[in-house]
Amino acid sequence: MKYSRAFLQTLREPPAEAEIKSHQLLLRAGLARKLSAGVYTLLPAGLRVLHHIERIIREEMNRAGAIELLMPALQPAELWKRGPRYDAARQVMFTAQSATRRTSEETVLGPTHEEVVTDLVASVLASYRQLPLTLYQIQTKFRDEIRPRFGLMRGREFLMKDAYSFDCDSDRATASYQAMYNAYSRIFRRIGLHAFAVEADTGVMGGSFSHEFVVPCAVGESEIATTDDGSYAAAIEKAVSLASPRPHNPPPVPFEKFPTPNVTTIEDLTIKHGVAACCQVKTLVYIADSRPVLFLLRGDHVLNEAKVLAAGFSQIRPATPEEIVSMMGCPPGSLGALKPLPSSITRVIADECLRDQHGMTTGANEEGFHIRNISVPRDLHVDEYRDLRTALDGELHPTTRRPLRISRAIEVGHVFKLGTKYSEAFGARFLDTDGQSKPAFMGCYGIGVTRCLQAIIEQHHDENGIIWPASVAPWQVALLLLDESLHEMAEQLETQLESLGITVLVDDRAERPGVKFKDADLLGLPLRLTLGEKSLNSGGVELKLRAGKESTLVPVQEVPTQVQLVLNQLLTAS
Amino acid sequence: MKYSRAFLQTLREPPAEAEIKSHQLLLRAGLARKLSAGVYTLLPAGLRVLHHIERIIREEMNRAGAIELLMPALQPAELWKRGPRYDAARQVMFTAQSATRRTSEETVLGPTHEEVVTDLVASVLASYRQLPLTLYQIQTKFRDEIRPRFGLMRGREFLMKDAYSFDCDSDRATASYQAMYNAYSRIFRRIGLHAFAVEADTGVMGGSFSHEFVVPCAVGESEIATTDDGSYAAAIEKAVSLASPRPHNPPPVPFEKFPTPNVTTIEDLTIKHGVAACCQVKTLVYIADSRPVLFLLRGDHVLNEAKVLAAGFSQIRPATPEEIVSMMGCPPGSLGALKPLPSSITRVIADECLRDQHGMTTGANEEGFHIRNISVPRDLHVDEYRDLRTALDGELHPTTRRPLRISRAIEVGHVFKLGTKYSEAFGARFLDTDGQSKPAFMGCYGIGVTRCLQAIIEQHHDENGIIWPASVAPWQVALLLLDESLHEMAEQLETQLESLGITVLVDDRAERPGVKFKDADLLGLPLRLTLGEKSLNSGGVELKLRAGKESTLVPVQEVPTQVQLVLNQLLTAS
Repeated sequence: MKYSRAFLQTLREPPAEAEIKSHQLLLRAGLARKLSAGVYTLLPAGLRVLHHIERIIREEMNRAGAIELLMPALQPAELWKRGPRYDAARQVMFTAQSATRRTSEETVLGPTHEEVVTDLVASVLASYRQLPLTLYQIQTKFRDEIRPRFGLMRGREFLMKDAYSFDCDSDRATASYQAMYNAYSRIFRRIGLHAFAVEADTGVMGGSFSHEFVVPCAVGESEIATTDDGSYAAAIEKAVSLASPRPHNPPPVPFEKFPTPNVTTIEDLTIKHGVAACCQVKTLVYIADSRPVLFLLRGDHVLNEAKVLAAGFSQIRPATPEEIVSMMGCPPGSLGALKPLPSSITRVIADECLRDQHGMTTGANEEGFHIRNISVPRDLHVDEYRDLRTALDGELHPTTRRPLRISRAIEVGHVFKLGTKYSEAFGARFLDTDGQSKPAFMGCYGIGVTRCLQAIIEQHHDENGIIWPASVAPWQVALLLLDESLHEMAEQLETQLESLGITVLVDDRAERPGVKFKDADLLGLPLRLTLGEKSLNSGGVELKLRAGKESTLVPVQEVPTQVQLVLNQLLTAS
Repeated sequence: MKYSRAFLQTLREPPAEAEIKSHQLLLRAGLARKLSAGVYTLLPAGLRVLHHIERIIREEMNRAGAIELLMPALQPAELWKRGPRYDAARQVMFTAQSATRRTSEETVLGPTHEEVVTDLVASVLASYRQLPLTLYQIQTKFRDEIRPRFGLMRGREFLMKDAYSFDCDSDRATASYQAMYNAYSRIFRRIGLHAFAVEADTGVMGGSFSHEFVVPCAVGESEIATTDDGSYAAAIEKAVSLASPRPHNPPPVPFEKFPTPNVTTIEDLTIKHGVAACCQVKTLVYIADSRPVLFLLRGDHVLNEAKVLAAGFSQIRPATPEEIVSMMGCPPGSLGALKPLPSSITRVIADECLRDQHGMTTGANEEGFHIRNISVPRDLHVDEYRDLRTALDGELHPTTRRPLRISRAIEVGHVFKLGTKYSEAFGARFLDTDGQSKPAFMGCYGIGVTRCLQAIIEQHHDENGIIWPASVAPWQVALLLLDESLHEMAEQLETQLESLGITVLVDDRAERPGVKFKDADLLGLPLRLTLGEKSLNSGGVELKLRAGKESTLVPVQEVPTQVQLVLNQLLTAS
């Protein structure tokens, strides 16, 4: 392929819209172009990378026994309403409406396909003999992202690989889950992404457990907790830790009310009255499944709403100040779960760290007053102790006792063990060996294909541009033609390399060598060949790895075999 | 691939929704399944066919020098408003709206991509050196079809290959057009579609000329006119013909008004007053570009609105009965373009067939009266004569003098020479060799990829099922395993064939031979191998072409080479 015919446009300067390196390089190297917020055209070079990623995904999904189909983006809302999560999913949904006609049908653009695939399988599933079954597709998804950002990292229209497994029972569903987990590990390795799996929250998807595959990224949406030895990795929503213990848990003594005018925060109480945050009890009022619930934590801890939901609630929200006053008889800032509890409060759950703690300070349920020397078991109403808090950087992992590091990451894949939530809703049932009708056990599995493209750039670049892994590079070789007199030799080399199945981009432009070298570094093809009178006179064609510093002179007739050799090394090394 | 693991479900009976054979077979063979009106899931076997069609399209587009990119489905309405056809395109558009938020942006789902691609090219085009340029994509389109029908033939969501060419001038644009025309001919031949090109109307797309690629189909949306020797083919909107002459064109005599109570149609006048349709002048009142215009035709002819638009109008509609009364002073049924014309009428265009005709009958512009012995040049007001009528079956083509046959067809591809309509609107300009800034000359080219899948079935089936062309068959070989004891031999054959790059579907189900034979015929893989004790005892494996009647016995060890031989014959024959 000739550079001059490849519709390649590099930019000298990163566009102002691009905040992170991979986004800047995506635009500067001419891989993609923004059409509107979160919506991008993939230019030819970018599409070539995408096709490589798709090919590798297909190979690994097929190897794992999954079968490809293609489901529609346009989906009847009625189908979603029969499922278990329409209201939550609507938050990120587009609807499709006729531009000119009034229609009674309500149609949505599917942000994912559990509803469609389960309904499809329900219509054909009859016997255990048809299971296990894993279906997948590579398909365009639409999500109404409120703040699309960072290029392809968080878009409104993107390509996704989604897969769905159906099994006879929970154990076999776990085996299907494991097969996808393994396929994902192979996929990310083959496309050159150093992704790792973290235990993840199942969130609105529901189900019994899940893993996120993430790549570290300073602007990532996910927070993850990892130990330095790699033995533990979890999404922050799931991360467990040993909280740093309080310096001293004193014996119980009688409590004592004291005035705290204008003190309404943890910090105020620390600064004005010398009460360390870890010795305060924070009282949070929530409306959980329409009923008032109190959550109690140490003042230095943060409530983890995902853990609250995992405790068995399906919808939670903080109470409004008005609701708090009406239920507790006191505004936020001086609350306490003192016995006896106001009758409006139905349940109190305290974080594990508060178990058996004495000498704590909490609000007096009276504006402008707090109480010190609280003994939690003696003075507070607690129905249940649970892990409610978000793990903090530096805390120890409970079993390995290694310190946790909290960092940001981008989710590139997600695997869920779903259970029977969707198969029950859509009647995806089968007759088992025992003659009983049972719902299929499901799993679902996603890879953000478009996002992977940019994540690869985020992990593979230097100050001069991208350094593509050979497996996904838009072309494998950049052949820079420095002297127009060598045009025919360049043609010959191109033909020879292509006959070996090697993809070549010949920079045939009427540009200065400096421009060609700069653009080659920016576009980042793994191997660079430089064809010019000067190096020919010195003995051959200059061959350089994009990832390396040294170049070697290769006699012209040896170029094809030498390039093939080096490329094979690159491909097997990854 | 094992049948039992391929998520294949055949149906004995065609679903009630399927009206035409290809639609019935599409569903019965388990290639696709309806999700909602005009929206289909492509099941694994159907998707395999689609991927073959895509691959062949890519090969031919790349061979023709076109470059692939991928543009978004979500498009800002603002972009369309800057273009030349937003109002017309809106008729078949979906808009995408946030399901839960109020947003000010207006977003549409692109039914095609002239606007996006021209805007993109405008942003990078600077010099004639960058031209010619042809960009293409294979991308999901959304169209708000009012009456989606016939399965994948007329859907709301479908895959399309669309391409756009940019050239320095009209001649070079014609060369790009011809290159695409040739690529299309190759594509349709290679995927096994007997498609042919007809001269077509440019319609709302605009531009200077175009061809439709169509396949004959009794329920097709397109009407085409062809001569039996294949020398002429045109869409009905463009078809030209010699009208059958009137039996006799008498010399002019004085006209004569006569009473015609309750006569308001051509037929009435023929039946009640013996005036042959070909001797009547039909007067049609239209609002063309907001002004009243009369079109005159012979009573046996039909107005062709596409020809009217081609005459230079941009929007036309029939006048309402109220408008007619107010403009002509007489209701429809007794109208005539008699001199002097009512002052409200701005223009009268008569069909060529009325030129120099005498002895005609027309309305008297007075309810219940007509006038006979009209001499068109003497008595009617005609500003201009043009070809306004739709060609009729049996009429002669003007130059070849061969009879036209009118038949129905499905459009599978369309090529347009657009001119500079879009490049002017979006500023896709370049500096030419003479230093002048000029708009690029464009062409656009579409193939309905999903539609092709079903069109192939429409052309390749018999009473038992589909007969896939080898180039696009979901698998090339059906291997029917009749005796479970031969399971290992089937495995071996499958492995041997696959190592030769041949795709095999092994029917390993616990079903009776009759069921397997029936399903094999229905699914229609080009080659069938039958592996059973009986034929093995007679000397080998039974090999049969789906398209043929005879089968041959092939010794087991010769099966792979024999299959390869036959497949190569099938592939080169097509």
